[in-house]
Amino acid sequence: MYRISDVKLEVKRYEYYETFHITGSSRDSAENIEIKLLLDDGTEGFGEASPSYRVNGEVVSALVALEPTIKEMIKEFDVREYAKIFKIMDGFSRSSPSIKAAVQYATLDAFSNSIDLPVYKILGGSKDEIETDKTISIDLLDKMVQKAKETFHKGFHTLKIKVGENLKEDMEKILAISDATKGAEYVVDANQGYTPKEAIQFAKFVHDNKINVKIFEQPVIWNDLEGLKLVRYNSPIPIAVDEGVKTKYDAYRLIKDDCVDFINIKLMKSGISDALSIIEMAKTANVGLMIGCMSESSLGITQSVHLATGTGAFAHCDLDSHMLIKEEKFRGKFTQSGSKLIVR
Amino acid sequence: MYRISDVKLEVKRYEYYETFHITGSSRDSAENIEIKLLLDDGTEGFGEASPSYRVNGEVVSALVALEPTIKEMIKEFDVREYAKIFKIMDGFSRSSPSIKAAVQYATLDAFSNSIDLPVYKILGGSKDEIETDKTISIDLLDKMVQKAKETFHKGFHTLKIKVGENLKEDMEKILAISDATKGAEYVVDANQGYTPKEAIQFAKFVHDNKINVKIFEQPVIWNDLEGLKLVRYNSPIPIAVDEGVKTKYDAYRLIKDDCVDFINIKLMKSGISDALSIIEMAKTANVGLMIGCMSESSLGITQSVHLATGTGAFAHCDLDSHMLIKEEKFRGKFTQSGSKLIVR
Repeated sequence: MYRISDVKLEVKRYEYYETFHITGSSRDSAENIEIKLLLDDGTEGFGEASPSYRVNGEVVSALVALEPTIKEMIKEFDVREYAKIFKIMDGFSRSSPSIKAAVQYATLDAFSNSIDLPVYKILGGSKDEIETDKTISIDLLDKMVQKAKETFHKGFHTLKIKVGENLKEDMEKILAISDATKGAEYVVDANQGYTPKEAIQFAKFVHDNKINVKIFEQPVIWNDLEGLKLVRYNSPIPIAVDEGVKTKYDAYRLIKDDCVDFINIKLMKSGISDALSIIEMAKTANVGLMIGCMSESSLGITQSVHLATGTGAFAHCDLDSHMLIKEEKFRGKFTQSGSKLIVR
Repeated sequence: MYRISDVKLEVKRYEYYETFHITGSSRDSAENIEIKLLLDDGTEGFGEASPSYRVNGEVVSALVALEPTIKEMIKEFDVREYAKIFKIMDGFSRSSPSIKAAVQYATLDAFSNSIDLPVYKILGGSKDEIETDKTISIDLLDKMVQKAKETFHKGFHTLKIKVGENLKEDMEKILAISDATKGAEYVVDANQGYTPKEAIQFAKFVHDNKINVKIFEQPVIWNDLEGLKLVRYNSPIPIAVDEGVKTKYDAYRLIKDDCVDFINIKLMKSGISDALSIIEMAKTANVGLMIGCMSESSLGITQSVHLATGTGAFAHCDLDSHMLIKEEKFRGKFTQSGSKLIVR
């Protein structure tokens, strides 16, 4: 019982309902990798990697080829001693973080199934539901406004608006969206698209026009810590880092250098182990936390939902990818009611 | 002519003559990946990746599986426009830097073959020879002393001494080696093994005993920038960073924060593109440069020899891995005379 006897990696392809356009990237489909752990008593544990070439340099064919190596590394380990498996998977933090995340979660899932206790309770059981935003990707102004209205009227109180390709158009868009969705809150995400001075102009515009933006995400390129700090010091609205924080070491550096108001944790960048470290550091340092996703299906979003409910650490959740892609069957270990993701 | 028509990746296994023992690692063999580029006129270009799981999180099976992806990305590109190919390969900086290095070098090699000009001349032709050290890996004191004497008497003026697993023994060892090889110079490499205070004690010991150590490499763990800076500020001998600098972004951060006297560039961490950036930054900032290797064969060492001679940027060269592993046939584009590596 409890011992890992087999590890399987399988590629699954998903189509987006609509082209997902953000700064520097446009996609119609996603290839994810499902991890299945088998324990010696037949118990299973599942995880999902949603690799990113843009952020992590990950390539699906290379990740799938890790199967024998990972099996060799973790077989015979007892999932109740999951810290040991987490540590082994930390070796992949740099090269293959989405696989690290999926194997770490599959370990927790197998453990959870073995002891018949949901993962969010293993992680502390802080909450039993969270609320997610929904993303409006880059499009023509009219289409973004239309999409924002529809989404808001479906019950998504917080809309995530993608910007970063054209400052002037972005200002027009956020103003038009704000006019069309009174009462909504916004997270704006530039995905590294602005210079520091453009980002400051955008932040001041949003503030001067009383647009209800609660977080302004990754205004500048990931490696520009000084630029990020400059934006933060000149922006009336909170600045979040996403692409700029992958591992806990990145988070430590940014917190130490006073560069951020918020950190966007994504399991596909950090895995469970670094996510837990970042949560503790950020809470201690009074830095805000949000959680995001890549292109996870309902299987992969489950991972973030249980982390978010278990730790109760996130002021904002951006866990909507399962709503943007076509799935044959919902496989989440949560239920959904509008913007609410519920684990109880 | 000049256009890439095919890319092949092939795994080659090499045995070490003797177990290579450094802090945190002991190995008897290496698996490298040879890259062969074929141009449309039949010209070939070769490169070699020597992957590191310890430093980069790289796994050979995963790297080999990149073949179709890389072929798709760079085929039809003209090797005379190598900057474009370099930029594409920068996408692998984080996940697969050794493959990035090998493909970038194979591009230069194919270009070199096409125009019948050696790579070191394409890179500036600063020098036509360099001198390398040779490494004494961790062993019992008597064996290390014996090995150091043999190596010194074979004409290697600079010996690289591996330390970091036991401070007291390391002090005894470096003192005994120094007594047995009068006139030699030393680079000591702790491979992240010391705490900052242990490293300071070691540096002071070496200095107080007038041991001729020119560089003290990676005293503390890679992510401890503050510890590295503390060591640097308290050490009478120059401190180099190795595991702590992978990409040009790492180098920028360490230079900006005054953490290092020397940077150890390895192509397997940085590729050609980031190596060239780090060289320019370090020279401008008056930071010293050395060049090292993983487990490259003569094919892979060629890459570093041509970078080192072409740029003339390195105060110290640690390019000895081809002497430590068994090869059927020498395939370097350089000749060797004792410690001299010659490209003319």
